[in-house]
Amino acid sequence: MASLWFDERDAKFLMYEVFNLQDLLEKPPYEDHSQDMVDMVLTEALKLVENDVAPTYPDEVQGKAVEAVFKDGKVYVPEAYHRLWQLYYEGGWGTLTDSPEVGGQGFPHTVAGLVMNMLSAANMAFIMYAGLTHGAAKLVEVFGTEEQKKIYLENMYTGKWAGTMCLTEAGAGSDVGALKTTAKRNPDGTFSITGTKQFISAGDHDLTENIIHPVLARIEGDPPGTKGISIFIVPKYKLNPDGTTSDELNDVITGNIEGKMGIHGNSTCTLNFGENGNCVGYLLGEERKGMRIMFQMMNEARLEVGMQGLGHACASYLHALDYAKERLQGPDVMHMRDPEAPRVPIIQHPDVRRMLLYMKSLAEGMRALNIFTFYCMDKVAAATTEEEKDKWQGYIELLTPICKSYCSDMGFRVTEVGVQVFGGYGYCREYPMEQMLRDQKISSIYEGTNGIQALDLLGRKLGMKKGLYFMNLLGETQAAIAQAKGIDEIKEEAKIVEDALNALATTSMEFSKMMKSNPFVPLINAYDFLNCMGDALLGWFHIWEAGVACKKLKESPSEKDTAFYKGKIESAKFFINRTTALVPAKAEILKKEEMSAMNIPEEGFAV
Amino acid sequence: MASLWFDERDAKFLMYEVFNLQDLLEKPPYEDHSQDMVDMVLTEALKLVENDVAPTYPDEVQGKAVEAVFKDGKVYVPEAYHRLWQLYYEGGWGTLTDSPEVGGQGFPHTVAGLVMNMLSAANMAFIMYAGLTHGAAKLVEVFGTEEQKKIYLENMYTGKWAGTMCLTEAGAGSDVGALKTTAKRNPDGTFSITGTKQFISAGDHDLTENIIHPVLARIEGDPPGTKGISIFIVPKYKLNPDGTTSDELNDVITGNIEGKMGIHGNSTCTLNFGENGNCVGYLLGEERKGMRIMFQMMNEARLEVGMQGLGHACASYLHALDYAKERLQGPDVMHMRDPEAPRVPIIQHPDVRRMLLYMKSLAEGMRALNIFTFYCMDKVAAATTEEEKDKWQGYIELLTPICKSYCSDMGFRVTEVGVQVFGGYGYCREYPMEQMLRDQKISSIYEGTNGIQALDLLGRKLGMKKGLYFMNLLGETQAAIAQAKGIDEIKEEAKIVEDALNALATTSMEFSKMMKSNPFVPLINAYDFLNCMGDALLGWFHIWEAGVACKKLKESPSEKDTAFYKGKIESAKFFINRTTALVPAKAEILKKEEMSAMNIPEEGFAV
Repeated sequence: MASLWFDERDAKFLMYEVFNLQDLLEKPPYEDHSQDMVDMVLTEALKLVENDVAPTYPDEVQGKAVEAVFKDGKVYVPEAYHRLWQLYYEGGWGTLTDSPEVGGQGFPHTVAGLVMNMLSAANMAFIMYAGLTHGAAKLVEVFGTEEQKKIYLENMYTGKWAGTMCLTEAGAGSDVGALKTTAKRNPDGTFSITGTKQFISAGDHDLTENIIHPVLARIEGDPPGTKGISIFIVPKYKLNPDGTTSDELNDVITGNIEGKMGIHGNSTCTLNFGENGNCVGYLLGEERKGMRIMFQMMNEARLEVGMQGLGHACASYLHALDYAKERLQGPDVMHMRDPEAPRVPIIQHPDVRRMLLYMKSLAEGMRALNIFTFYCMDKVAAATTEEEKDKWQGYIELLTPICKSYCSDMGFRVTEVGVQVFGGYGYCREYPMEQMLRDQKISSIYEGTNGIQALDLLGRKLGMKKGLYFMNLLGETQAAIAQAKGIDEIKEEAKIVEDALNALATTSMEFSKMMKSNPFVPLINAYDFLNCMGDALLGWFHIWEAGVACKKLKESPSEKDTAFYKGKIESAKFFINRTTALVPAKAEILKKEEMSAMNIPEEGFAV
Repeated sequence: MASLWFDERDAKFLMYEVFNLQDLLEKPPYEDHSQDMVDMVLTEALKLVENDVAPTYPDEVQGKAVEAVFKDGKVYVPEAYHRLWQLYYEGGWGTLTDSPEVGGQGFPHTVAGLVMNMLSAANMAFIMYAGLTHGAAKLVEVFGTEEQKKIYLENMYTGKWAGTMCLTEAGAGSDVGALKTTAKRNPDGTFSITGTKQFISAGDHDLTENIIHPVLARIEGDPPGTKGISIFIVPKYKLNPDGTTSDELNDVITGNIEGKMGIHGNSTCTLNFGENGNCVGYLLGEERKGMRIMFQMMNEARLEVGMQGLGHACASYLHALDYAKERLQGPDVMHMRDPEAPRVPIIQHPDVRRMLLYMKSLAEGMRALNIFTFYCMDKVAAATTEEEKDKWQGYIELLTPICKSYCSDMGFRVTEVGVQVFGGYGYCREYPMEQMLRDQKISSIYEGTNGIQALDLLGRKLGMKKGLYFMNLLGETQAAIAQAKGIDEIKEEAKIVEDALNALATTSMEFSKMMKSNPFVPLINAYDFLNCMGDALLGWFHIWEAGVACKKLKESPSEKDTAFYKGKIESAKFFINRTTALVPAKAEILKKEEMSAMNIPEEGFAV
């Protein structure tokens, strides 16, 4: 039976038939990786997911919670995570895209993205431990001294030590610059760290012999705001002079773990640094460059969050589809009044088909958006000129907030519909549907709330290089649209996508003018603008994929492939006609200078 | 401090300034109820909510679950519910609208609706026990024999006995007609009931000395489908000849209670009737009229479900507003780059204001929709001609599926945004936000899934009396629109509402034609059509309320009222310009004959 967690056929379609990854596999730095090797990676990853990861997904088994536990000052992960951690690192999954120089496999990010897609679906709470470890290690790889690399890289990339990401404080969430954690210079060049970090995912656990915390703090005397922030490496256990883990704790004390709506297997910690004045931190990179450095990790994390939305959407859809094919309820709609008519699987009911196609078209559209962004990284790596590199890097900049925000919200929306397809069963803990919804909810909040992502897109990304990246991206969409316009079957949809993108180009220009005249208009509408971007870009990917599918259908594919390609075309039609088509009307609203949200007096919200 | 669970000012505005309930209070059957009495009811209800109900809301206290428990075959509710139950019935809340003949207070439904609004917000899991008890008692009142009324009414209306609603079976959810529970005639005129009912809310508990189950079953030999269904009264404990509760159980055995995403305080039971061949049921009403009879209770329950969406939306909004006024984060948007600028409450940030006004405008719009529907019941009761009665009854028929489906989905949407306003805290169990979201999710599923509601609206309600009720309702909207068109401040919005309603009138006619030519178009689009109806009707209520607010503002109101009325106007502008305005574009999509959901081959969903 096909997987309920990952749609391998769609992944391969995207990779080989749409993005033509095989072309990239012929060029440096990927020329040592064949298509067979890529296929094998996907096959092995899916085995890991099916056999080992997915069985650990439920956060309740026979009425008993499966969760991270805080007991006597220590954090314990669910028992099964220990073996998973070992399998994950033994299998080399921790360094799929990393350079062989640091022990990595050097695979394209496109491939790693698809692997992440599966893993986020099958146990997000678990994979976050590994994701944060990778991100923290990468910080050291990019910004660390040679000595730091020697100490940390191998230990972290092999999963012997774990990593975290310590930004948030009780009064400094979205406003990172307001943080209060301080770093005091010690005579030996190290720093004494003092402060409390909150909501630290995977902040403490018993998976590894040590945990490495990258911590944002302000060196005494440095200016307020983000400009005065530096970043420090703070190990949970102090290190011996030879770089091994000592038995001595480094005064990082776990105060608590949060009771949460979901991701119960992941420990969300309050960490107290230097409560006893004995917490040693090591400067990473230059002083006062902490924010810039941390952004390396944040960008990686934001794409992973987008993947969580995709992963849950994908798993929720496949579970709902499976259920809808099995579950009998009611007669065929044409025989509704005949009580003797045979019961049919609910997939035959129009409203259920609507829900399923909604889920499918969003899941597949988000897959395209996310994996395209990973593909851009491969294009950066393979670029032979600075110009080319800059172009693809520009797409990554632009698309990162959209991947994060749009996919976290739409992933939630898809899991909501997934619950609905299951009816009463969807609300019961016996089935995974309600957990997916609970787990998914965090994604719109952490790694920068979706409101912050919208501001990033509007206030920073759209204007980068005077809008060049955005114009480039719009240009990038032209090929698929032009091709689809030549295919009768989908030419109307091609026009809809074009209109949507044009509407957003106009809106973006208007916003840019308004940033001077009435900045509140773009600010109020930033979030809705980002969603329109998502709706339009998914339209682009859908028309691109449908164009490929139409072409393939003419080549007399197998029966199975015929169904698949037809499915792609209907998925595109559904999404473009029902969602992308609304973008121009929504864009009109965005530009309208509708100021109620600013005009309402504060006391007018409720008296 | 104002309540975090209920917006009393808005409720009174709606009741007295918009619907002019005071006019109804001068006519039979309400002429004995003064405005003072109504105000006192609201005041007392709010006291109950604040002092007694809301404190029982959290389903986890200090890490310990507060939930219904199944132990040794018995169901126990959370301890605090016992006292609440007593307070509720001693206060007369169980029979607020019922006739004095059955011990009720005879208040207008409008008032009871607002009380329900509060109670659903402050502890939905609890209030469901009482809601089902009322619904079951009302069935006996309307359809029972004199003897049955004597036995059951007082006991149930005073909360001495509770009630349930037993429709669903494992293979018969949306398709009630497929039920397998049987009723076998006994020589004494009673019936022996055999079958298993599932997902029975409040199905068993220790709140009352007896529980009365209205059970749908098929008498042996009766035809299949809904036409062969009868309804029976099945007490949990057998009754003595004098109608009191005996010690003997009536062979209704609780098999299990469900572990659920939310409403943990409410027991969702599997009930086995007649496993030992000893379950006695008493026919209620005529044989084979079970579905028609049960609809009395279902319609009441569907409106209560709409109230749950409203209640959660309202509570989530008020909590988020309170938080946004207190929580400091980041500088004012005009000083974003100044790290020394003072931190401001997040309500000053445009994106947060957008979220709050989104929540406010939906909560208030849903309140108007729901309370209007209750107001229609009062108009039915006060009608002096059959024509008038029929007109208002027609509105109830039309609006019931919209209240149920739209408010359950939008209530969920509002609680989602409520979590977002709280940021990371919203995801933590320490705050009520995530529980509201979990509790609310059930509403789109039970009492007929929202897909079923959409079919009810499109397939039954729109066409009733050849569309007369729908045309009447559209006519009803004209007054407020015409008035608003004469007010400069809101005339544009009035036009938007008018256009939206016209677009739906056209769509409805097209659908009616297509039901013959291509029924799949209306069937695929039924759910989206229902949502468009909600978006347009809320626009109508908003323009109606804004019209009143504009008028009141000219009468030099107090400072507080000025803020309130301005808030109403901005709320209307926000909703109408951003949501109602999209209805015509959405209606175009609905009519488009976009058939992808039917055209996709089943194997094309995933291969």
